Amino acid sequence: MTPFHPPEVLLLGPGPSPVSKRVLDAMARATIGHLDPRFVGMMDELKELLRYAFETNNALTVPISAPGSAGMEAAFVNLIEPGDNVVICQNGVFGARMRENVVRIGATPIMINDAFGTPIDLNKVESTLKDNPGVKALAFVHAETSTGVESDAAALCKLAQDHGALSIVDAVTSLGGIPVCVDGWGADAVYSGSQKCLSAPPGLSPFTLSEKAVAALKARRTPVQSWFLDMSLVMGYWQGSGARAYHHTAPINMLYALHESLLMFREEGREAAFARHRENHLRLVRGLAAIDVELLVAEGARLPQLNAVKVPEGVDEAAVRKRLLSDFDIEIGSGLGELAGKIWRVGLMGAGSNPESVDRLVDALGVCLGRKAA
Amino acid sequence: MTPFHPPEVLLLGPGPSPVSKRVLDAMARATIGHLDPRFVGMMDELKELLRYAFETNNALTVPISAPGSAGMEAAFVNLIEPGDNVVICQNGVFGARMRENVVRIGATPIMINDAFGTPIDLNKVESTLKDNPGVKALAFVHAETSTGVESDAAALCKLAQDHGALSIVDAVTSLGGIPVCVDGWGADAVYSGSQKCLSAPPGLSPFTLSEKAVAALKARRTPVQSWFLDMSLVMGYWQGSGARAYHHTAPINMLYALHESLLMFREEGREAAFARHRENHLRLVRGLAAIDVELLVAEGARLPQLNAVKVPEGVDEAAVRKRLLSDFDIEIGSGLGELAGKIWRVGLMGAGSNPESVDRLVDALGVCLGRKAA
Repeated sequence: MTPFHPPEVLLLGPGPSPVSKRVLDAMARATIGHLDPRFVGMMDELKELLRYAFETNNALTVPISAPGSAGMEAAFVNLIEPGDNVVICQNGVFGARMRENVVRIGATPIMINDAFGTPIDLNKVESTLKDNPGVKALAFVHAETSTGVESDAAALCKLAQDHGALSIVDAVTSLGGIPVCVDGWGADAVYSGSQKCLSAPPGLSPFTLSEKAVAALKARRTPVQSWFLDMSLVMGYWQGSGARAYHHTAPINMLYALHESLLMFREEGREAAFARHRENHLRLVRGLAAIDVELLVAEGARLPQLNAVKVPEGVDEAAVRKRLLSDFDIEIGSGLGELAGKIWRVGLMGAGSNPESVDRLVDALGVCLGRKAA
Repeated sequence: MTPFHPPEVLLLGPGPSPVSKRVLDAMARATIGHLDPRFVGMMDELKELLRYAFETNNALTVPISAPGSAGMEAAFVNLIEPGDNVVICQNGVFGARMRENVVRIGATPIMINDAFGTPIDLNKVESTLKDNPGVKALAFVHAETSTGVESDAAALCKLAQDHGALSIVDAVTSLGGIPVCVDGWGADAVYSGSQKCLSAPPGLSPFTLSEKAVAALKARRTPVQSWFLDMSLVMGYWQGSGARAYHHTAPINMLYALHESLLMFREEGREAAFARHRENHLRLVRGLAAIDVELLVAEGARLPQLNAVKVPEGVDEAAVRKRLLSDFDIEIGSGLGELAGKIWRVGLMGAGSNPESVDRLVDALGVCLGRKAA
């Protein structure tokens, strides 16, 4: 066995996205102690940078020391208790994961299903909330990574508020690519991932709770079932002005990486980053149209950072992905769940959202499909 | 806000331990996809390297995508169900965490307490197991990071077997520093951390389950309460010869780091690494004796990699630690729980276990205490 030297691959799948040399260099700096005062200073900056990305003033805004799936679990186990009812919107595979989380808490999921590839139907949500008074939370995915669809997070959070429910928002693929306005929406628990539009390596989950959510956490009748993800304990380490209480050893170098990637996001500016994601998405749509390839999602609901691309009739989708990787060093993703075999997923996220990446992919795809751009 | 440049600190606390340039460089290599066949090949090597470290042939041997605290939780939530009885040996603060895990599952902890600074009393364990037939598991900490004590893991695992209980072993601080013989002991669930004697950055938890433990997992009456840590799902990604099922996005670059650190461990060889940890521990004991400083733990039970050093009468322990950090760039740890204020914790773990580190610390401590070596 020898040291592992990964190939250079252009990452245009559903994540991880390309990580810049600047972020990789930051991550490779010397490891220091997780209670070192210099490290604690960096933690404070990190919280501030996350608040910028989430557009929030929430005090409880931290990176969870594990991937986005753990961020999802943290949202549910901290806010939901056995016996609670939770309305879950499912328009892709990640809604099914939310359901799993709720069931494993001993709570009751009330599912609302929409077709994969379409946004969440607000009317169905409203009538479900009306028909089920006393629901503890409404949970939904803002940017469905499995289908490339954006749902109306502002309206969904408003519906939750109007019916006295907390809102739990999956912003794994949205944060950094399209606006995530935690305070503007009045969202209560929002989690994301480091490896999508923030372009840090995978392994961390940016996470924020509103004051209302913190109050719900404090008012629990039962302990949070996960010790590792219990935010009332985690905050003893991340908050306070003086010494930090040891809870678990923070993933020091990963936090260096996230700090650097968030700093780059702030240097570029939120609006500029969103505009860049939009422009390169439109460039992709034009490029694909020129080789007669279409997108799955209707124009108004498309995510610029995650494009569900229809596999043309008669094409072996796996063979194309394999050839893109082996001959062109480009990774794209396959369809998940009921969309397996029907779509490719093209991510233009973070550092991967640029004209060169789009052109390189469209050219390579044209070769694989035997189609030249008009 | 500017990029974060951590200082160079000699990490001689309870972890993280010093991370070599070789490991940091490996971590900073290009991020690739978590389903890329080249990455999957690296995963297979990683499992093999972990089996070498754990001295096991267990098929289910993987790094969990979160720190050691999550490894602890994974052991409990996968094997323990509501209503089970679990015997927990507590001779330091980590036994109390085990208790928390068991309570949050809805199971019943049966505690055995030994004084902080002493090993687990085998007689008490035997009589407790005799008095409580049908116990599901015996859980204990092999190397207590809070006290610097080694307990007899082989004898404890044997007692568990003799009484039909599974054994859950915390090897966070032991793995890589002293023998962890998973198969030799017949241990059933063992977890560790990347940032102790393996000298990778914090953030991953090496984890292994015996065949008996896997059978218990398969025979559960209830689902594992954590979706993220459900090993029956995690294994769909880590096992199998062909395509890997997506469960969560693996922390790619952290896995590069762990791969490299385990490769270095295998290059040095287990026995050579253990001998090095012993020798540098003895060098520390001699050095401390020369400045009239003693260890807390009796000679036979001392961990070479984690030394509980008695704070001399009348010395302000926090002031000494602060000065070591600010004037000498050396980090050591404070006491936890009932040992707070009474001991320092000096880690000589992984890359930190070498004569130069020992001498530098002893010299600096001598200056701080106003004591010169005889």
